[in-house]
Amino acid sequence: MNTTATEQPSLYTSLSPALLHLYDLSNSIVVIIDVLRATSTIATVLHNSAKAIIPVDSVSRCIEISKQIQGITAGERDGKIAEGLEYGNSPFEYPREFIEGKTLVLTTTNGTRLLHMALDKGAKQIITGSFPNLSAVCAYLQQQQLPVVLACAAWKDRVNIEDMLFAGAVIEAVAPQFSINCDSSAIALSTWQLAKEDPYAFMKEKRASHYLRLSNYGLEKDIQYCLKPNSAPVLPMYEDGKLILHNETR
Amino acid sequence: MNTTATEQPSLYTSLSPALLHLYDLSNSIVVIIDVLRATSTIATVLHNSAKAIIPVDSVSRCIEISKQIQGITAGERDGKIAEGLEYGNSPFEYPREFIEGKTLVLTTTNGTRLLHMALDKGAKQIITGSFPNLSAVCAYLQQQQLPVVLACAAWKDRVNIEDMLFAGAVIEAVAPQFSINCDSSAIALSTWQLAKEDPYAFMKEKRASHYLRLSNYGLEKDIQYCLKPNSAPVLPMYEDGKLILHNETR
Repeated sequence: MNTTATEQPSLYTSLSPALLHLYDLSNSIVVIIDVLRATSTIATVLHNSAKAIIPVDSVSRCIEISKQIQGITAGERDGKIAEGLEYGNSPFEYPREFIEGKTLVLTTTNGTRLLHMALDKGAKQIITGSFPNLSAVCAYLQQQQLPVVLACAAWKDRVNIEDMLFAGAVIEAVAPQFSINCDSSAIALSTWQLAKEDPYAFMKEKRASHYLRLSNYGLEKDIQYCLKPNSAPVLPMYEDGKLILHNETR
Repeated sequence: MNTTATEQPSLYTSLSPALLHLYDLSNSIVVIIDVLRATSTIATVLHNSAKAIIPVDSVSRCIEISKQIQGITAGERDGKIAEGLEYGNSPFEYPREFIEGKTLVLTTTNGTRLLHMALDKGAKQIITGSFPNLSAVCAYLQQQQLPVVLACAAWKDRVNIEDMLFAGAVIEAVAPQFSINCDSSAIALSTWQLAKEDPYAFMKEKRASHYLRLSNYGLEKDIQYCLKPNSAPVLPMYEDGKLILHNETR
């Protein structure tokens, strides 16, 4: 095997939080992927000039921290606004005129939980990925040349289509710079290549479980927004307990 | 939702043993899938008129039980014959003239371990599936009309392509008789539909990890055999500690 200095960094895809322990995160950039809708909302909120997002793993902690810092409580359980919180998990709740300069305290069923798992497992860096910030994620991974784990939030540990599609879209863009020996990544890429002409139609045709769940709540508009690339081209990075905009000049 | 007596049974796909706990096995037929090579070898051995296969989870237990019943010790660790065992995990080691009437005691890295997990989790019925016995598995699932969990053995809990392809092939055949609300099943089906013209070429093109592992050991012939449908059209069923031929008249 070639072990010279020119060896490319590895890239793996973890299709569920229940599989994350299989991957070494200690030297890796972990990309948290929760397409519907946590990481799409995170990108949108930061793109709309929020100060920061504090991801927390429980509703009670969300309320407690928000009180301390005068933040906005936000989040969902089972796809709906969680009881006791002011706002939900839809990107449309956070236009610039509302969120600019503010701090959101966010708790979601899958995405924020996975972020805390990655933190507990000693991830070197944590960023969040979604179609609205696809190109920003890809550009960063290509610049850094560090090992990458694409970590899908899934739904209560069950693999889902949309997070896999995003992983596939990232892989399509960055594959030439990485050494990829990972069947989950190969499957994600080929699924993305099937879907990319029209990811929304693909989700509908495949009767994706999250498509059915959200469209039952009348949230088709959210799904369409969350599958569209590059409308919020920023890089959210986890630093000192907060997701903030990555400063390229740092 | 329609909850009349005509409701179809559910079908789920578990892409890794680390995801099996997400599914209720207590009322289900669990299909253990370890295409390369445990379940392909199991179908072949029973098709070649072996008396039974005793799946065990350790090499020491394999040797111990084999002594007691004068069986044949067989198995692998990391794709090679495990130290202390007589035979490996290749279907070509078990022609009829050798195995007829004998009992194989088998231990493998992934497949036999998963079978014991399904047993511990209270599966209602356990059968084994592989391309050599694809049609027998599909026919049985269609007859029974019970809930089904397609349980992929994967590789040390990492999702693999070939077990997913087999799950997809089963789903393609049985989908009209089942209610399928499972993204893993949708992904398995669409991956199978991409691959089915030539599954061997697909595995090679996608640089499937198990393809690379076994072809490094010169086992291309095994891979080709294990991806070919219906050369050993039997139904192995787990009963009283053994895998035996399912007797249709029982």
